[in-house]
Amino acid sequence: MLHLLKRRETALTPLIAALQAVAAGLATCSVCGNVDTRDPCGICTDPRRDVATLCVVEEVADLWALDRSRLFPGRYHVLGGRLSALDGVGPDKLSIDALLGRIAGGGIDEVVLAMNATLEGQTTMHYVADRLAGQGVQVMQLAHGMPVGGEMDYLDEGTLAQALRARRPV
Amino acid sequence: MLHLLKRRETALTPLIAALQAVAAGLATCSVCGNVDTRDPCGICTDPRRDVATLCVVEEVADLWALDRSRLFPGRYHVLGGRLSALDGVGPDKLSIDALLGRIAGGGIDEVVLAMNATLEGQTTMHYVADRLAGQGVQVMQLAHGMPVGGEMDYLDEGTLAQALRARRPV
Repeated sequence: MLHLLKRRETALTPLIAALQAVAAGLATCSVCGNVDTRDPCGICTDPRRDVATLCVVEEVADLWALDRSRLFPGRYHVLGGRLSALDGVGPDKLSIDALLGRIAGGGIDEVVLAMNATLEGQTTMHYVADRLAGQGVQVMQLAHGMPVGGEMDYLDEGTLAQALRARRPV
Repeated sequence: MLHLLKRRETALTPLIAALQAVAAGLATCSVCGNVDTRDPCGICTDPRRDVATLCVVEEVADLWALDRSRLFPGRYHVLGGRLSALDGVGPDKLSIDALLGRIAGGGIDEVVLAMNATLEGQTTMHYVADRLAGQGVQVMQLAHGMPVGGEMDYLDEGTLAQALRARRPV
C-alpha cells in the first residue's frame, strides 16, 4: 500500500485507471450468469461448445473452477447462490426460472447439477432436480467419493462410506 | 514426562505394566493381517460378518478407518503396504499370495480393492486387480469424486475432473 502511495503518478494512477476499465468493461452474461467482458459471454458464444449439455453451478467461482479442469464440453448456468434457510435464500432468489426457460427453449439433452457437497449445496441440488423432473432432460449429479491423493486413514467417515457405497468394477 | 518421573510408584510402574500387557497380548491375525488381542481376530471370527465379501486394504490403519464407518459388512485382507519402486517394495513384500489363497479356498464372491487414491495406492490396486483376474470373483474399486463437505472452488482439478467424468443420474 505504501509503495502505491509513494509512487502516486507511476503506480497508483495507472492502477485506478485499470480498475475503472475493468469495472466498466465487465458484464454479467444474460444467458448463463457468467462474468465476462461481453454479453453473451465467451462460453455461451463459443461454437465448439456442446449446446446439448448444460452444467448448473451455484456461483461464478464454481463455473471458473470447473472450466479450469477443461473436462466439461458443454455450457453453464449460474444459479447465483444456494438455498439457505439461515441466510433467507429461497428458490425465488436463484435463477431457476431462467434455467427452466433455457431448457424449454429446446436443444438441451443433459443437465449436470454440479453443486457443492455441502448440506446447502445438496439441498439445492435435490430441489433443482425436482423442478427439472418431467422437462425431458437427463438430470445428472457429480460423483462423490475419495478425492485425488486421498488417504483412507485421513478421510472422514462420511466420505469413506460414500466411496464404499458407490464402489464400481475395476 | 516429568509427571511420570515424579510419581514412579503410582504412575510410571502401572504404565510399564500396562504397556507390557499390551505388548504380550497383541497378535497379528494369521488370516487377514489385522492387529487384535486374539488370532484369528475379532472381525475374522465374527459370525455376523458376510464371508462372501472381502475388502483389501494397504495397512491396518486403513482397515480400522474403514471399519469405523460401519458400512462394510464383510471381512478384510491387509496387504501390509503398497507397491513402491522408490521404497523398494515389490509384489513379493505384500501378502498377495495369501489373498489368492483365501480366494482359492472358496466362498468369496466380491473383492473390494480399497486402496488410497494416491499414485502408489492406485498402482497397487491395478496390480492386485490383474492378479485377481480369472479367479472367479467380482473385483471392485472405491468411488472417486467429491468428498463430503467439498466445495468446488477449493477442490483440485483432478478431483473435479473425476467427479464430472463419473457423474450419475440423480
